[in-house]
Amino acid sequence: MTMPYEAPLVMMRAAIDQAARAAGLISVPGRAEALVELADAVLESAGRFAREVLSPLNRAGDAAGSRLTAGGVVTPPGFPEAYRRFCADGWASITGPEELGGQDLPLLIAAAATEIWGGANLSFAMCPEAASGAIEVLRLHASEALRRQFLPPLVSGEWTAAMALTEPQAGSDLSTVRTIAEPAGGRAPTGIASVRAGPAGERTVDLEGAWLVSGRKIFISWGDHDLAENIVHLVLARTPDAPPGLKGLSLFLVPKRLPAPGGELRANDVTTVSLEHKMGIRTSPTCVMSYGERGGALGWLVGPLHAGIECVFSMMNHMRLGVGLHSTGLAERAWQLARRYAEERRQGRNAAGAQRPIIEHADVRRMLLTMRALTHAARGLAYTAAATFDVTRSGTDEATRVRAERRLALLTPIVKAWCSEIAVEVASLGMQVHGGTGYVDDSEISQVYRDARIGPIFEGTNYIQAQDLLARKVVRDGGAALEEWLLDMEHAAGTLRGMQTLTALADGLAAECARLRTAVAQLKKSAPSNPELVGSVACPFLNWLALAAGAWQHAIAAAEAARQDPANPVVRTQIADARFYAAHILPRAHAHSTAVASGAELIFREV
Amino acid sequence: MTMPYEAPLVMMRAAIDQAARAAGLISVPGRAEALVELADAVLESAGRFAREVLSPLNRAGDAAGSRLTAGGVVTPPGFPEAYRRFCADGWASITGPEELGGQDLPLLIAAAATEIWGGANLSFAMCPEAASGAIEVLRLHASEALRRQFLPPLVSGEWTAAMALTEPQAGSDLSTVRTIAEPAGGRAPTGIASVRAGPAGERTVDLEGAWLVSGRKIFISWGDHDLAENIVHLVLARTPDAPPGLKGLSLFLVPKRLPAPGGELRANDVTTVSLEHKMGIRTSPTCVMSYGERGGALGWLVGPLHAGIECVFSMMNHMRLGVGLHSTGLAERAWQLARRYAEERRQGRNAAGAQRPIIEHADVRRMLLTMRALTHAARGLAYTAAATFDVTRSGTDEATRVRAERRLALLTPIVKAWCSEIAVEVASLGMQVHGGTGYVDDSEISQVYRDARIGPIFEGTNYIQAQDLLARKVVRDGGAALEEWLLDMEHAAGTLRGMQTLTALADGLAAECARLRTAVAQLKKSAPSNPELVGSVACPFLNWLALAAGAWQHAIAAAEAARQDPANPVVRTQIADARFYAAHILPRAHAHSTAVASGAELIFREV
Repeated sequence: MTMPYEAPLVMMRAAIDQAARAAGLISVPGRAEALVELADAVLESAGRFAREVLSPLNRAGDAAGSRLTAGGVVTPPGFPEAYRRFCADGWASITGPEELGGQDLPLLIAAAATEIWGGANLSFAMCPEAASGAIEVLRLHASEALRRQFLPPLVSGEWTAAMALTEPQAGSDLSTVRTIAEPAGGRAPTGIASVRAGPAGERTVDLEGAWLVSGRKIFISWGDHDLAENIVHLVLARTPDAPPGLKGLSLFLVPKRLPAPGGELRANDVTTVSLEHKMGIRTSPTCVMSYGERGGALGWLVGPLHAGIECVFSMMNHMRLGVGLHSTGLAERAWQLARRYAEERRQGRNAAGAQRPIIEHADVRRMLLTMRALTHAARGLAYTAAATFDVTRSGTDEATRVRAERRLALLTPIVKAWCSEIAVEVASLGMQVHGGTGYVDDSEISQVYRDARIGPIFEGTNYIQAQDLLARKVVRDGGAALEEWLLDMEHAAGTLRGMQTLTALADGLAAECARLRTAVAQLKKSAPSNPELVGSVACPFLNWLALAAGAWQHAIAAAEAARQDPANPVVRTQIADARFYAAHILPRAHAHSTAVASGAELIFREV
Repeated sequence: MTMPYEAPLVMMRAAIDQAARAAGLISVPGRAEALVELADAVLESAGRFAREVLSPLNRAGDAAGSRLTAGGVVTPPGFPEAYRRFCADGWASITGPEELGGQDLPLLIAAAATEIWGGANLSFAMCPEAASGAIEVLRLHASEALRRQFLPPLVSGEWTAAMALTEPQAGSDLSTVRTIAEPAGGRAPTGIASVRAGPAGERTVDLEGAWLVSGRKIFISWGDHDLAENIVHLVLARTPDAPPGLKGLSLFLVPKRLPAPGGELRANDVTTVSLEHKMGIRTSPTCVMSYGERGGALGWLVGPLHAGIECVFSMMNHMRLGVGLHSTGLAERAWQLARRYAEERRQGRNAAGAQRPIIEHADVRRMLLTMRALTHAARGLAYTAAATFDVTRSGTDEATRVRAERRLALLTPIVKAWCSEIAVEVASLGMQVHGGTGYVDDSEISQVYRDARIGPIFEGTNYIQAQDLLARKVVRDGGAALEEWLLDMEHAAGTLRGMQTLTALADGLAAECARLRTAVAQLKKSAPSNPELVGSVACPFLNWLALAAGAWQHAIAAAEAARQDPANPVVRTQIADARFYAAHILPRAHAHSTAVASGAELIFREV
């Protein structure tokens, strides 16, 4: 059974409007108009591209995978053409600044497109996502010359980007990074085909300011490929006499190929050593890269010396939001596949003796409703984070922007961690709806199940997200930013009062807000004297807060739906899902809150 | 990193003793002695076989998979030899009756071995498991002649067996089975190489009593392979003039090859059409089989005409227990891999500046403890079911046996469904502990993650288990058998009173028992007037009861441990795990009980 990915335009548009209101984006001049005028057209067009171009490549891409050949990494048939069309249709540049040829759309609209790419073809989607992270870093930190030289082809999608951060011994702990960068001393190493020196320009490179980068990096997504003629690597490296640990790391721009006279590109000293063979995202080449095997790869410092980690962090939030959006897309895709299968597959008989589609079986419905209610919550939170990001950039006054920064700081780790957990759970439920048919390799749900499992791992494991949330963003400010959010959640619960069918949601959400407030007060008190406390309870805390935030999203949607025509199917769906969430999903918070209350003692015993 | 499977002998032995006491097997003459005298030796020997023979084949088997060739299914290198050694060492026959060359060990001991095979190499383990299900069916239902002819080679493992139940249009709903069986009329069809007729014997087949079976079956595990020279298929088929639906199905024994003069085996009309390419259990050939392409496959009726479903059911319980045991083995294996990885992998630094193994990180510990506490609960319940099965066979009086039947009826669907869910969760946690390293294909944890996912699907989906539990085994008898069990659980909770560190477990378990009792009373009352109620709440109900049953297992283990030397590491582990379960896992019951309370209304809305 093949069935192309279909962007859920109506639900997405509702989520966009809801997020724009919740984040205050709706009142930002310029952005609100863009939403009203462009969202529908962009979404419809993105949906068509996903359905016609990306989705049809997804299964074959999984089966074939990308391969490393003598000439570099080769993607499965159709991927290079799809990428060229992606750029030609302007998808690479939707959020790029206008002065660089971008379309400067709100990130909120781009977020919906990002969800669509992830749902249709996650492997493909990861390539432009990495580029948009790099664009973010270069815009904020690179010199004028580097920006002039490298941003235009990145914004257009003509070139792509890759993040070269970790190393075999390092994993999540970048403090042990060993890759070295030394000043090039104005000369290209002999191993590199001659490049023309001069002030950085279209056809020259600035050899005076160049560094020689040497080292080996792992887990580099789209580190090499045949979709574009050049790949801009952002490489974390240690300079001579740098202090040890994280504070000694600097970020370098290392292109796969160097601009040379005549518009040519000459090979830099960048080698793809091998590809990982992975359980999922098999078209996305996960590379082991070697820099400087022939004397040193030419690179240029991005941001100040020894500020590499800060530069990387400015992209991390963007990448983490990307994981949440891609995960939402996968959850949506799992739902689509399961929903369709449940309608077509017949099992058992109804009272009249006719064979029933399995969607009439109670537990199949329970699974589908769980999938839909979780996906709705994931989408709502991810879009709210995107809208909040827009406000941090374009909010009309400093106070608004700073408040948005505070909220985004809380939302980002939750979106990354919880949406990725949701994708894993929803994919597994989708598999269960399919039964044995889902377990065979050529069933797309089995690919979604395998693809989704990377989400909780990469771009900072979910434990790293949880520690970031609890230690840096809740405990450090004494819970002030969280309190602001809890008040918003309680307000949303309050809007449901008097709607009888939504009482359970209103009461449940208000109760969790109160319990979270109490727990945070307790953690603030105990954390200073108990160094293991925050780490021990961070993951249950994140999941607890996320479940409440999901209820908040359902409350906002249901309150809005209740004002509209009750015969509208979207309205009925939103109210049904909100009620289902209150009865079946929000009560999961109890297990997490109990775990938080139990603290560190049970964790630090024999394992 | 390769690390062979290591049977957890100490924990297994403790679980065996605990299950033997809980089920009353300890007081059954003959069985108790067998446990004392043989359990250690059998387990140690099974552990060695798993470590030396089965575990080393697991990764290569996954990578190569079984293949269909012109000569039939070929397993990866090493599997035929491993199976020959398995039989030569007597593992195929450990539970077989003595008069047929078996060793007649308690199923409880065999259960531990079954867990070991599943943990070391699930694909392999499924082959003897299918045979032991078939042996069960034939012992109970086949004619004396069929038993004499087919049981000895099945018990020795010389021949294997396969269950041919479902068909493309049927899925879980066997009522639509279309395979046909007609009386052979005393003649072999021309397409079958001549066989010698006569009373069934070693070298002859009873053509007078033979049937001709024709049809296509799917999802037949180990339906063809090269481990043994013959495969006994048990095929559900419809006889002429049989009533429609389930009541018209009969069970037939259809050998792949027919005994012929000179000890030869002649091909029956049985063809392997294709193999499924699956996400996991890739060495276990999942066959599409065709019977009767050349005129009809010779088969013999097992049990009465039209009693095929009853015959199959007598094996189902055995097979479902097998899924629970294999799943426990996979969970144990995921734990072993993650535990080892967490010890070896270094990330971050401790206060003294030394690199820390990740097992020192709080959330890695939390994940490992969750894995261990769940695996302990799974093992305890699965072994208790096995011990209870033994009591149904060898209990000294009728009342004891009948009581054991009642308990086994409750335990079986829980063991199948919950242990398989646990394997999926524990494998996913194991993946998370490994991080990116676990996501690559040559990491064994990625295989465990893929292999485990079949458990909730096959041998009756977990929804089928839940309906069996709630509709047939709880509501039908008005909750009487469940009440007996709840009293046992409450008694176990009572034994913890006064042990301060175990108060949370004792109180939590007692509270869930009380809530379950109330919920069942409510369901009894509402179910007759609400036909969708039981189906709507069956899965949450099963998970709720299973969480309580897991607490019961931890309570029994902790109470026993508290009587022993507190310096013993096993004692410390059991008490630590019981406390962890009470704080982190048992509270999940709240979400399930809330879902049960919400009934069918939210399920039967627009999906």
